[in-house]
Amino acid sequence: MSDSRSGCPIAMTLDIVGDRWTLVILRDLHLGKRRFSQFLDSPERIATNVLSDRLALMEREGLVAKSLYQDRPKRYEYRLSEKGEALLPVLQAMSRWANRFVPDSWTTPPEFLNRKTP
Amino acid sequence: MSDSRSGCPIAMTLDIVGDRWTLVILRDLHLGKRRFSQFLDSPERIATNVLSDRLALMEREGLVAKSLYQDRPKRYEYRLSEKGEALLPVLQAMSRWANRFVPDSWTTPPEFLNRKTP
Repeated sequence: MSDSRSGCPIAMTLDIVGDRWTLVILRDLHLGKRRFSQFLDSPERIATNVLSDRLALMEREGLVAKSLYQDRPKRYEYRLSEKGEALLPVLQAMSRWANRFVPDSWTTPPEFLNRKTP
Repeated sequence: MSDSRSGCPIAMTLDIVGDRWTLVILRDLHLGKRRFSQFLDSPERIATNVLSDRLALMEREGLVAKSLYQDRPKRYEYRLSEKGEALLPVLQAMSRWANRFVPDSWTTPPEFLNRKTP
């Protein structure tokens, strides 16, 4: 990527997912959500324009692939690519950390923590 | 935290470290850097005001503790707390992911990937 800050793999990952929302949408995809309205429904109440923006970025970066599921009006659903699936360990590590250090965080279901990347 | 978006541990982690820079500074701390000038020296070339801002946030969130190492002018050094140390698995997961999926990312040293949190 021509706009990466360095070749450091941590910095390069953050060039892609280093914001407050992208990994929240990725969590929803890992939980089986696929449609715009489903992402909007999540408890964090993402704004419509932020969601559109992040989904476009995730598609551009190859984390998700979109496909048409309705023609009039056109509606798309989103599925994780292998590259997007493979971010699961980042989500799991964040969940474990918050459950240990952040008061009042919801307990992560063991099936999410133990899930393996394909 | 009163300003968290939900109790989801992933969202709560991102409320704290969900930006392009905080985990880059945390990486530097894990690599042994402690001083303002050392963080500025990193290849990502963080801006002075962004660095001040993020270090203050990290201190407020209890990820680092600062101590005076020079009196005139006052200069501080920063060390990871247990809570900050415990984010290492997030950094390791990001490194592994980029080494697999992001072209031209630098290979992560095995001693960083295999390091255990205390």
